[in-house]
Amino acid sequence: MTNFSLLEQINDTADVRGLSRDQLGQLAQELRGFILESVAQTGGHLSSNLGTVELAVALHHVFNTPEDKIVWDVGHQSYGHKILTGRREQMHTLRQQGGLSGFPKRSESPYDAFGTAHSSTSISAALGMAAAARHLGLSQRQHIAVIGDGALTGGMAFEAMNNAGVTDDINLLVILNDNDMSISPPVGALNRYLARLLSGNLVGGARDKLKKILKSAPPVLEFAKRFEEHTKGMFVPATMFEEFGFNYIGPINGHDLDSLLPTLENLKHRGGVQFLHVITKKGQGYKLAEEDPIMYHGPSKFNPQQGIQPTTAPKSPTFTQVFGQWICDMAEKDWRLVGITPAMREGSGLVEFHERYPSRYFDVGIAEQHAATFAAGLACDGLKPVLAIYSTFLQRAYDQVIHDIALQNLDVTFAIDRAGLVGADGATHAGVYDIAYLRCVPQILIATPSDEAEARALLSTAYQYEGPAAVRYPRGSGIGAVVPTDLDTLPIGKAKVVREGQKAAILVFGTLLHASQLAAEQNNATLVDMRWVKPLDEALLTQLIHTHSHFITVEDSTKVGGAGSAVSEWLSAQGVTKQVLHLGLPDKFIDHGDCAALYALNGLDEQSIASTVSAFVA
Amino acid sequence: MTNFSLLEQINDTADVRGLSRDQLGQLAQELRGFILESVAQTGGHLSSNLGTVELAVALHHVFNTPEDKIVWDVGHQSYGHKILTGRREQMHTLRQQGGLSGFPKRSESPYDAFGTAHSSTSISAALGMAAAARHLGLSQRQHIAVIGDGALTGGMAFEAMNNAGVTDDINLLVILNDNDMSISPPVGALNRYLARLLSGNLVGGARDKLKKILKSAPPVLEFAKRFEEHTKGMFVPATMFEEFGFNYIGPINGHDLDSLLPTLENLKHRGGVQFLHVITKKGQGYKLAEEDPIMYHGPSKFNPQQGIQPTTAPKSPTFTQVFGQWICDMAEKDWRLVGITPAMREGSGLVEFHERYPSRYFDVGIAEQHAATFAAGLACDGLKPVLAIYSTFLQRAYDQVIHDIALQNLDVTFAIDRAGLVGADGATHAGVYDIAYLRCVPQILIATPSDEAEARALLSTAYQYEGPAAVRYPRGSGIGAVVPTDLDTLPIGKAKVVREGQKAAILVFGTLLHASQLAAEQNNATLVDMRWVKPLDEALLTQLIHTHSHFITVEDSTKVGGAGSAVSEWLSAQGVTKQVLHLGLPDKFIDHGDCAALYALNGLDEQSIASTVSAFVA
Repeated sequence: MTNFSLLEQINDTADVRGLSRDQLGQLAQELRGFILESVAQTGGHLSSNLGTVELAVALHHVFNTPEDKIVWDVGHQSYGHKILTGRREQMHTLRQQGGLSGFPKRSESPYDAFGTAHSSTSISAALGMAAAARHLGLSQRQHIAVIGDGALTGGMAFEAMNNAGVTDDINLLVILNDNDMSISPPVGALNRYLARLLSGNLVGGARDKLKKILKSAPPVLEFAKRFEEHTKGMFVPATMFEEFGFNYIGPINGHDLDSLLPTLENLKHRGGVQFLHVITKKGQGYKLAEEDPIMYHGPSKFNPQQGIQPTTAPKSPTFTQVFGQWICDMAEKDWRLVGITPAMREGSGLVEFHERYPSRYFDVGIAEQHAATFAAGLACDGLKPVLAIYSTFLQRAYDQVIHDIALQNLDVTFAIDRAGLVGADGATHAGVYDIAYLRCVPQILIATPSDEAEARALLSTAYQYEGPAAVRYPRGSGIGAVVPTDLDTLPIGKAKVVREGQKAAILVFGTLLHASQLAAEQNNATLVDMRWVKPLDEALLTQLIHTHSHFITVEDSTKVGGAGSAVSEWLSAQGVTKQVLHLGLPDKFIDHGDCAALYALNGLDEQSIASTVSAFVA
Repeated sequence: MTNFSLLEQINDTADVRGLSRDQLGQLAQELRGFILESVAQTGGHLSSNLGTVELAVALHHVFNTPEDKIVWDVGHQSYGHKILTGRREQMHTLRQQGGLSGFPKRSESPYDAFGTAHSSTSISAALGMAAAARHLGLSQRQHIAVIGDGALTGGMAFEAMNNAGVTDDINLLVILNDNDMSISPPVGALNRYLARLLSGNLVGGARDKLKKILKSAPPVLEFAKRFEEHTKGMFVPATMFEEFGFNYIGPINGHDLDSLLPTLENLKHRGGVQFLHVITKKGQGYKLAEEDPIMYHGPSKFNPQQGIQPTTAPKSPTFTQVFGQWICDMAEKDWRLVGITPAMREGSGLVEFHERYPSRYFDVGIAEQHAATFAAGLACDGLKPVLAIYSTFLQRAYDQVIHDIALQNLDVTFAIDRAGLVGADGATHAGVYDIAYLRCVPQILIATPSDEAEARALLSTAYQYEGPAAVRYPRGSGIGAVVPTDLDTLPIGKAKVVREGQKAAILVFGTLLHASQLAAEQNNATLVDMRWVKPLDEALLTQLIHTHSHFITVEDSTKVGGAGSAVSEWLSAQGVTKQVLHLGLPDKFIDHGDCAALYALNGLDEQSIASTVSAFVA
């Protein structure tokens, strides 16, 4: 156990502001140790938080938080901030039900100026606050967006930069936390540009070359000096960020308080629209994380002395792994398959596909909108793009799904991971709206596999369908179904009757099928694995309305507009009146916590479903 | 009537490619005249199409279309392209039911490589096609995205640039059609940057200054020459676009075929990732449009000799105008009100608000994602932002609505214009999904006024509510209700019984209330102006279920997951079984045409509703 004697005296940021320069160094050291111990105990984001220790200390020392506003983009790097702002002693509850959120959250602390989690929102939010300050006459207030080089590739960050650069009379400081990393390795032109900026090739290099040319002509030296004076702003538009109207400062070492502190002091007093480029290292100070920042991006509990140990016990594959295997197998069979990810190679299970089919793998950066329309472009030529995307991030590409893919009926397969509740990441990442927001879009199919084997078969089916089709599956493992190796398809819009019963029909969309088994048995009800939200199995439903009086729908998504509603709509359209009960998630945001516990809390565990159905049928 | 002797011989692009340089000039002249006459007869987009005449001629002369792919961003500028690609004789059907679309459309012509309408998609789509060509071994094929300076501010254009700049072995030509205009006057840092590029201040200006310095020292001249050689790529990273990995060429005059033709020829043979900056003038060649490109952006029919005449007959105000008046009035009363538009000042009715309250007006550019999160930032400080946005464009900000506004329960008022069918703009612009995609988001209110007076009252109500609330209203005028001048509110979640009847209750969400009157009378049914989709008036519904056996819901949006479904969900949750009939738009994309005719086609005119309801009740 490290000594946290100084850190333990920090209860709010006034305490940080009261420290001397030497103490700040000690504080940073203790904070780093605390983060490591804390995350090792709870699991959570590690590499990114180790990389922003000095930045968090320096920001809270220099700026007058919480009056001054800090927006941490994505929020994977805000643990140091949380610890310094009165939440040190709750860190052991991180990402657990009722405990601290893994992200900044307005309702958690006045220091959390804006809730983040999805990427690239910080500049927009901070600009909004800056404009509000202008409106309110708070001319001294500072507004700071801390954004990573990965997040900066998201289009809305550019939209915000474009807007900020021409907004007068505001204080906005964008801090680019450049660690050459998003969760996946970096991609894109912007990243290459930052690397060139860093190496000094853009500015310094050019200046050196000119000096060399001029040196051979001694009388020219004076002109060379005059030229130097004119250089900035004359020849060199310095950086792309200056083109956007920002004053660019950097790059500086983000682990060196002697660089950070005076630079931030200076910027604080300057005001206006500033861009500070800070270089940090993911995992800084913990050798194992420095060496493998991806493995240490979001570990489960581990022993910091030993590091993360390879798991020996063979676990049943996750849905993500089932998808990862399927896409490799299908790619081997069909040369038309290409795979796309918006910067989620690891999370989406595409590492092996990338290795085996590098020219057919496209990591387009944190850029969901582009990812979808890029897929549409690929499909125009008869290729068969598979877009691997988390349910919650597909929200970013909603317009593109409608306008570019569905409207043109293009052959794009959506492999939607993290559908349903996601556990520790909480409300920001919940994949519970997808059925409702996709179902209202014409021409797109939606499949909801109940287990791993069905996930594979439905992926094959969606893939073979020559139009837009989505397969949604949850985080983690299912029941451990044996996954076949074939690429056989299932009939589109055809459900599977799992159990034949009487009176009541339980229609399940997705993996809650298994939690519904007990209800079916207790009530001698018919149990159906619906498999498809769209199209519904109308033939089966037509049979069931003749033989059953009660219909229960079950889904791991919001009831509002969900699959259950699809069944009710169909019943209404047939002019049929039946007792219908919709089971699913309620119309409210659900915080982080253990998935099973959260489903139980919302009446979606085996016992609750059984008792609810019994009461309904009775 | 102008002479179109040459144009009339052009039936496909092979004919364009066969023309001599002199003939191309004549063709451009005839094409411009044809566009003017044609749009004056049908209405449609004028200024933008007059600005791209030479570009369309040059592209189809130089490139081997349709094998080579041209993607016209937004598509407001594609009429010349349509006329040259076999659709000249259908131009009189433009934007009319069964006629040509106002946008490129894949199903309309093989020359329309990608359907566009929403902004900023072209680079993503063309990059997808370019990647497909690489996969297919079509190494000679060219892929061209023509994008305006307004559309380039959309985040997804940057996402695509970022991705394109590092994609190897592709042919991609991005043509920036820089006319210093989107529909509204241009805003943003990028636009300022383009203006500087244009004035030569970045490169040429700097070079001139150096020359001046060096001139006073004659022996230096040789070095100066060597310096010039080194200039490109050494001192001057040339342009932001080169930072993204593009080879930047330009700016060139987009109305000068002698510039366009050789430049495009050159680019065609170079391949790779190219960026051509073309300067055009909106309205070019038609003096009235040149002088007022905004008025001539999308005119109705007019006489080209006279120009657009001021309308004398006082028409009842459109919903847009009602909103425009309301926001001025509320702003006068409440200093906390700020207004935001993503580049739709005119279309959203914000011209007067902008004039009266310039510091409280924010045009953030074509940047819906940023607009929403910027509004969230403003709301964090207790300001009361009003985001004026078209229903179809709100799709672009869907994730931000969920993640940044609703989840944080921030006080943002959404003034959703162009809800329902939109007429001539067709399926790409249909505002028919908003109820379904907003209804499933927790914590957001949704109001559907039935007429102009109610629109004003519901705007006031949504505004006073201290959380996210949306009011959706259609394009054009309503029944001509007298709009009060007060800012009184209505009770949240309270419907209005318009007619008391028996047996059947017709529950209408929005302006179809009036088309439902006949059905109510013919069937002696209860008629309810529901006003709110969320929250529903549960108290009223509770009464109705005791007194009515048949429920009919009516809405001008998709039935799938729509307001009718909300009613069915509520009935199911009460354990009530009723005969329910949902009237609304079907689950398919609906093409352009006259709104009233399209509603009638889909059973939503007065007669159809009456007969459907009668059959249902009988």
